[in-house]
Amino acid sequence: MNYAMISYIMGVIMNAEAALMLLPLAVSLIYRDGCVLPFLIPILLLAIIGVLLVHRKPENTTIFAREGFVVVAGAWIVVSLFGALPFVISGEIPNYIDALFETVSGFTTTGASILTDIEGMSRSLLFWRSFTHWVGGMGVLVFIMAIIPLAGGRSVYLMRAETPGPSVGKLVPKMRSTAMILYGIYILLTVLEVTLLKCGGMPFFDCLINSFGSVGTGGFAIKSASIGYYDNAYFDIVITVFMILCGINFNLFYLILTGHVLQALKSEELRCYLGIILAATLVITYDILSLYDGVAEALRYAVFQVASIITTTGFATADFNLWPPLSRTILVVLMILGASAGSTGGGLKTARLIILLKSIVRDIKKALHPRSFNVIQYEGKPVEESVVSGVGSYFALYMVISVVSILLISANEYDFTTTVTAVIACFNNIGPGLELVGPMGGYAHFNAFSKIILTLDMLMGRLEIIPLIMLASPAVWRHGKTKRRSL
Amino acid sequence: MNYAMISYIMGVIMNAEAALMLLPLAVSLIYRDGCVLPFLIPILLLAIIGVLLVHRKPENTTIFAREGFVVVAGAWIVVSLFGALPFVISGEIPNYIDALFETVSGFTTTGASILTDIEGMSRSLLFWRSFTHWVGGMGVLVFIMAIIPLAGGRSVYLMRAETPGPSVGKLVPKMRSTAMILYGIYILLTVLEVTLLKCGGMPFFDCLINSFGSVGTGGFAIKSASIGYYDNAYFDIVITVFMILCGINFNLFYLILTGHVLQALKSEELRCYLGIILAATLVITYDILSLYDGVAEALRYAVFQVASIITTTGFATADFNLWPPLSRTILVVLMILGASAGSTGGGLKTARLIILLKSIVRDIKKALHPRSFNVIQYEGKPVEESVVSGVGSYFALYMVISVVSILLISANEYDFTTTVTAVIACFNNIGPGLELVGPMGGYAHFNAFSKIILTLDMLMGRLEIIPLIMLASPAVWRHGKTKRRSL
Repeated sequence: MNYAMISYIMGVIMNAEAALMLLPLAVSLIYRDGCVLPFLIPILLLAIIGVLLVHRKPENTTIFAREGFVVVAGAWIVVSLFGALPFVISGEIPNYIDALFETVSGFTTTGASILTDIEGMSRSLLFWRSFTHWVGGMGVLVFIMAIIPLAGGRSVYLMRAETPGPSVGKLVPKMRSTAMILYGIYILLTVLEVTLLKCGGMPFFDCLINSFGSVGTGGFAIKSASIGYYDNAYFDIVITVFMILCGINFNLFYLILTGHVLQALKSEELRCYLGIILAATLVITYDILSLYDGVAEALRYAVFQVASIITTTGFATADFNLWPPLSRTILVVLMILGASAGSTGGGLKTARLIILLKSIVRDIKKALHPRSFNVIQYEGKPVEESVVSGVGSYFALYMVISVVSILLISANEYDFTTTVTAVIACFNNIGPGLELVGPMGGYAHFNAFSKIILTLDMLMGRLEIIPLIMLASPAVWRHGKTKRRSL
Repeated sequence: MNYAMISYIMGVIMNAEAALMLLPLAVSLIYRDGCVLPFLIPILLLAIIGVLLVHRKPENTTIFAREGFVVVAGAWIVVSLFGALPFVISGEIPNYIDALFETVSGFTTTGASILTDIEGMSRSLLFWRSFTHWVGGMGVLVFIMAIIPLAGGRSVYLMRAETPGPSVGKLVPKMRSTAMILYGIYILLTVLEVTLLKCGGMPFFDCLINSFGSVGTGGFAIKSASIGYYDNAYFDIVITVFMILCGINFNLFYLILTGHVLQALKSEELRCYLGIILAATLVITYDILSLYDGVAEALRYAVFQVASIITTTGFATADFNLWPPLSRTILVVLMILGASAGSTGGGLKTARLIILLKSIVRDIKKALHPRSFNVIQYEGKPVEESVVSGVGSYFALYMVISVVSILLISANEYDFTTTVTAVIACFNNIGPGLELVGPMGGYAHFNAFSKIILTLDMLMGRLEIIPLIMLASPAVWRHGKTKRRSL
């Protein structure tokens, strides 16, 4: 294990977080909301520790899968632990476990909240809360990689450990350029959404917050009624479009920007993802028709909620907890499916769904012709068997974590639906579930133990489980030196 | 496709069902409950069609996987379609869809009931209803195989298609002898349980019914309060023990009977299965302590309900729907896990759980050492990679069927918990779920569409999905002649 390199990268990350916190500090100075100190203290702490760690550049900058997992898991935890400080120091979320829940919910782009009086919060804290969505959406380490060269040619291990989906492709040979391109597209989308919302007359501060929430597929709003507060069809449409866009694999945007539009549109995952959105929207529109004034209005609410849930954003313009059972169930299924691989969304990911379904079909065929062997094709290319079995065992692991979490949360005396959807909504980084954790509910009422479990679920959901298991596994730490490091 | 052989086997099965129906006919004559005609008509129908189909012995008796799946799926459907007739003809379940639901629930050893007045039913119908558990428990085709030689040396395809679990091992080289040994053990267990219950003073008719229900892991009772009606600790203990026994792989009983006791006790699946029962019982005992009079009583109710659910029997001595959330959730998880492979129980099966967990651990190790390759060991032997990936894709298929069924059942205006647990309880062949379908509830209130979906779920659960998909797949029927048949 390359400890020197790990602590060096952790130092860089802490410095970066200190720098990022300057933004909410500026917001506090602009709005004079009295939150200068709550940001200044963690900034100084982060900068001091960060500078100390960065001070000594490691001789050996090589890292492998092992270090990649540990760094990513460690970075997300450290960033969350310090990111929670402003809430506690300001006294607006006095309980540290609550503040940590809220911060992890932000970075993991979950959007589950323990706040009961959002409108009463200071502006700078609300800004920081939503800004964590934006930072977490594309990834903390991808962000660092885009700014400074790290770990030589080995930073692919960092990206692999942080980026969701069954496999990570480099867009261009250099990892750093890939990270820069991804962040470029990400910033472009954010600026575009802010502009479009501003054109519709939304206050600038709200434009920023809601764009962070939708582009990062996070879902923190600054009104208790979420986006429903504005009650504006134009805003609904803009936000719906940007949520759907940010649930698409960002590699496709790169293809489009480099002129390969047709190739992007042929993407199997894109078609499947849009197909699911279309089908779910149509069925729900039909199902909720009697609740709304005509097809157009039902469609507007259906598509917003579908887009918000499948992209794992979690914004709401309607209390879908009050919708009929079929619509509610469809939304719960969409929570689990999630967005595309390589997007800012969470969940199981469309790519995995496609590979799982194809492996089911193959195994049924195999039952008929025991000696047949078919290679699964995905996006026009054969999929390696190790990826197929990896997707299968990831799905099994995903279910095991879900079931264990549900059992642990069951110790609360809540109804089955609340318990199950709280876990689903946190683990898949959505935010709202059903019943007590519905879009008009929240997570404030859970006890500390449950909040810690749900916090871990959010982290495991965002990092796709493995990095955190690695961090907690003694076997990873035991072998101080890997064989390959000595090469 | 060997159509001649398929229709021949179907004829044999219909004759066998006619013969089996003579038992409830005898019960009707003994108790003079006026149900002679309701049994005589289907017996004659089955015998006439059966004799016509058996009349011409096929020249080519060879069958392959394709025929095995079709025969098994077809047999279970035909047997259920005719088995429902006595209920309809007697007028005691006038609606055919209801009668079919009840019959499939019987044969698949589910035990989900649409009856609202069990005590008002005729004795012979109650006998037939529970006798279907007994027949379905070990398998309709295994039963036939035990009596008459079928399909030459190829009957392994029938057994494979009907016996639950990831892989089927022959106990002895001859398939027919294997079937006879299995039924021998099965009859022995039944006789033993009837005797023990009778010794405790249970009426003989009740002894038969409750033994069919527990040995077949079915769960139909003849009292609305299920086994709770007797309120007798001795009966509870006897039935608990027999439910647990019948959730064990029957191959282990063969090992014990042939003197390999130690080998049987070393079984990984057995230890895991008993371990889960022990752990679940202890946690639930602690959780329900305040509801009962002391530890002993809490333990008695906890272990009965745990055994009943994990073996997918579905008997109840307590309304676990009223238990605290943790206990309820544990029971729902046990519903999904199910009993051992090669037992009479349903669910995912302990063997699959073990292989899934081992493949998860392997894949986590692989993430650390991408070039490593470990073969999974199960029961002391290496597991073929095709079995591992088969278990993974079976689990995925299992989840897909569950989710689709839940979506379809959601069209009813029931709460999320009722919908989800109704599907889980039917698909895993348990019977009772939570809320409206809890142990003191039932399935009478579902509409016809939902009953048909749940009926299909029960069949898919018992036959482990694939045979029914095969039966419905045009590709299976299209290729009239397989390449291998012409060899």
